[in-house]
Amino acid sequence: MASVRLIEYAEATAEVRAVYDDIMATRKTDFVTNFWKAIAVHPPTLRRTWETLKSVMTPGALDALTKEMLYLAVSATNGCDYCIASHTVSARRHGMTDEMLGELLAVVGMANETNRLADGYQVEVDAIFR
Amino acid sequence: MASVRLIEYAEATAEVRAVYDDIMATRKTDFVTNFWKAIAVHPPTLRRTWETLKSVMTPGALDALTKEMLYLAVSATNGCDYCIASHTVSARRHGMTDEMLGELLAVVGMANETNRLADGYQVEVDAIFR
Amino acid sequence: MASVRLIEYAEATAEVRAVYDDIMATRKTDFVTNFWKAIAVHPPTLRRTWETLKSVMTPGALDALTKEMLYLAVSATNGCDYCIASHTVSARRHGMTDEMLGELLAVVGMANETNRLADGYQVEVDAIFR
Amino acid sequence: MASVRLIEYAEATAEVRAVYDDIMATRKTDFVTNFWKAIAVHPPTLRRTWETLKSVMTPGALDALTKEMLYLAVSATNGCDYCIASHTVSARRHGMTDEMLGELLAVVGMANETNRLADGYQVEVDAIFR
Amino acid sequence: MASVRLIEYAEATAEVRAVYDDIMATRKTDFVTNFWKAIAVHPPTLRRTWETLKSVMTPGALDALTKEMLYLAVSATNGCDYCIASHTVSARRHGMTDEMLGELLAVVGMANETNRLADGYQVEVDAIFR
Amino acid sequence: MASVRLIEYAEATAEVRAVYDDIMATRKTDFVTNFWKAIAVHPPTLRRTWETLKSVMTPGALDALTKEMLYLAVSATNGCDYCIASHTVSARRHGMTDEMLGELLAVVGMANETNRLADGYQVEVDAIFR
Repeated sequence: MASVRLIEYAEATAEVRAVYDDIMATRKTDFVTNFWKAIAVHPPTLRRTWETLKSVMTPGALDALTKEMLYLAVSATNGCDYCIASHTVSARRHGMTDEMLGELLAVVGMANETNRLADGYQVEVDAIFR
Repeated sequence: MASVRLIEYAEATAEVRAVYDDIMATRKTDFVTNFWKAIAVHPPTLRRTWETLKSVMTPGALDALTKEMLYLAVSATNGCDYCIASHTVSARRHGMTDEMLGELLAVVGMANETNRLADGYQVEVDAIFR
Repeated sequence: MASVRLIEYAEATAEVRAVYDDIMATRKTDFVTNFWKAIAVHPPTLRRTWETLKSVMTPGALDALTKEMLYLAVSATNGCDYCIASHTVSARRHGMTDEMLGELLAVVGMANETNRLADGYQVEVDAIFR
Repeated sequence: MASVRLIEYAEATAEVRAVYDDIMATRKTDFVTNFWKAIAVHPPTLRRTWETLKSVMTPGALDALTKEMLYLAVSATNGCDYCIASHTVSARRHGMTDEMLGELLAVVGMANETNRLADGYQVEVDAIFR
Repeated sequence: MASVRLIEYAEATAEVRAVYDDIMATRKTDFVTNFWKAIAVHPPTLRRTWETLKSVMTPGALDALTKEMLYLAVSATNGCDYCIASHTVSARRHGMTDEMLGELLAVVGMANETNRLADGYQVEVDAIFR
Repeated sequence: MASVRLIEYAEATAEVRAVYDDIMATRKTDFVTNFWKAIAVHPPTLRRTWETLKSVMTPGALDALTKEMLYLAVSATNGCDYCIASHTVSARRHGMTDEMLGELLAVVGMANETNRLADGYQVEVDAIFR
């Protein structure tokens, strides 16, 4: 058995196909990206992750673009290649310009820098921040 | 010599005081938080970090609140206690509500989860994301 | 000199060959994987890492499969491509099924999510956990 | 408004109380730990996180103790104080002995070490691992 | 618009070319590496990052080789492929031998291991370290 | 049984005492710090970690101060409070001045920043770095 596998629609169970169908309908596309085809190896993870994603990424107090940019900021911090690539595209589709990406990554870079300065200098949290 | 030290205004050099004065003037407060008093042990780091922060966090293509929320998303991902505490307060001052913080951390949590699923399942980046 | 180098058996010193021989004998294979050929550039690291691995991964209070799954959980959290690929194969050899991998990565994903929620919400450790 | 807040049962909405009640019933205790009282600031996160936790941590192909140990391995790797403390206690309740914790953390330590050696030496993934 | 873009000298603005010229003059080379061509998408990030790099990496209380090795230690810990590859080359140019790289990565590996042991065992900081 | 425990000399087995004795003799002190008393809960981890530490941190191609600074750079990047506190003290004992610590943390901060820029901008490794 291969170590890495993708579940294609043709070989998917009805349970997995139902999620794939909902992904394509929701996103108005006719294909499913590799992330979903990989986690479909474990159908409960596929279903739960998709349901959570739909719920968490739906516009609420924060709009869809802001949520995509937060997702990208986390993914860049974790160095997850797949997620950086896919959420850069998603954020652009929601309106992120080169200028906005530039400012986003400038904040991400600076936060990563000052996070380590605060830890490295063993800075105590000020009373006003508690 | 103590391992951890804070440079108070009274003992600071003119170079350090100039930065402290600018911090207080820019932020319209009459005190300097521990982060700056800690990194003032190395004046070039103090000056450079403050100049960069002013430049990076100034509203541009992204507004100040969005930048503060991105900062917080990175800090939560890195588990930096000081930065989480201080930037939660900063973001609230820029208008972040409980509801917005809730949605922000839901995205942060989910991105951290799916980052590891994408890595753990060794998912190849789709051609459409390149 | 190339930046990245692998020490092949034919060019290895007696000290390095002795470790390679023990790796192949212990694993009942006739080749050595890239990880060992890379760290062999520094023979003390090669010898110490192999001795530690043998000792740490030997079944004890925890069986071999559980240890391999813990290794994989850490590697997925750190996003180490090499270690994810190699320990997924190792864990499968020790009996990990698709279903077990699915549950393992579901726990890994959820732990990564809640780790950041606990940090992001600045949750104090309960007295009963101390 | 305080930056960090806990939602106590007495002040909770019916929606939040329903989750608290289910937590106490499922765990057969008469109190709710700080993690849940913190994330209850955002009820959808509370409800979803609890539902996911119940589903993911239920014994399946992996038993409850193995799942708790995987959770702890991730939390130690991320350095999440709250999660390390709480899941050490949970794992002990499911039968983890000092010896098992010792072996678990030995694997966690070694995986963190070799993850960085594999990355630092820029080791290519062997063909047999793909 | 492609998701990933490099700004070549021929298409660069005067502002970007000025930085590229300074990079090539400072490094005594006739080309600019991909990192700079990628961040040039956001000129303020390009200019600021280059100015900071020049300032931070200039020999001071620490010599250039020590600074390059610290950079590499951080990059290996974060698993940043680009930075590991480029700073391994830079450190070698400043005199890092195979033996020194071996000892560097041995320290990096061990620190990553003991960081997680200290966190995993919930070790309190000794009074003498405060 | 308490979740967190320290093994004091008086209650230690002969095997653990032998390591404690060697730690005190090697370091020319009359006490053992909490890290060792915590991991002594699992004697094989205590013995192996101490032997590795002695071997890895002994001056070789890199001197003791450089090794301590690399250790500190990794610990600051990982945000390990215990290790930052203890290795800041160790590095100072080996001669690290305020100025050197300032430069060290400036490099650590900058490396953390550029690591995320390189990942976030999806920069391909240049051919000359391979």
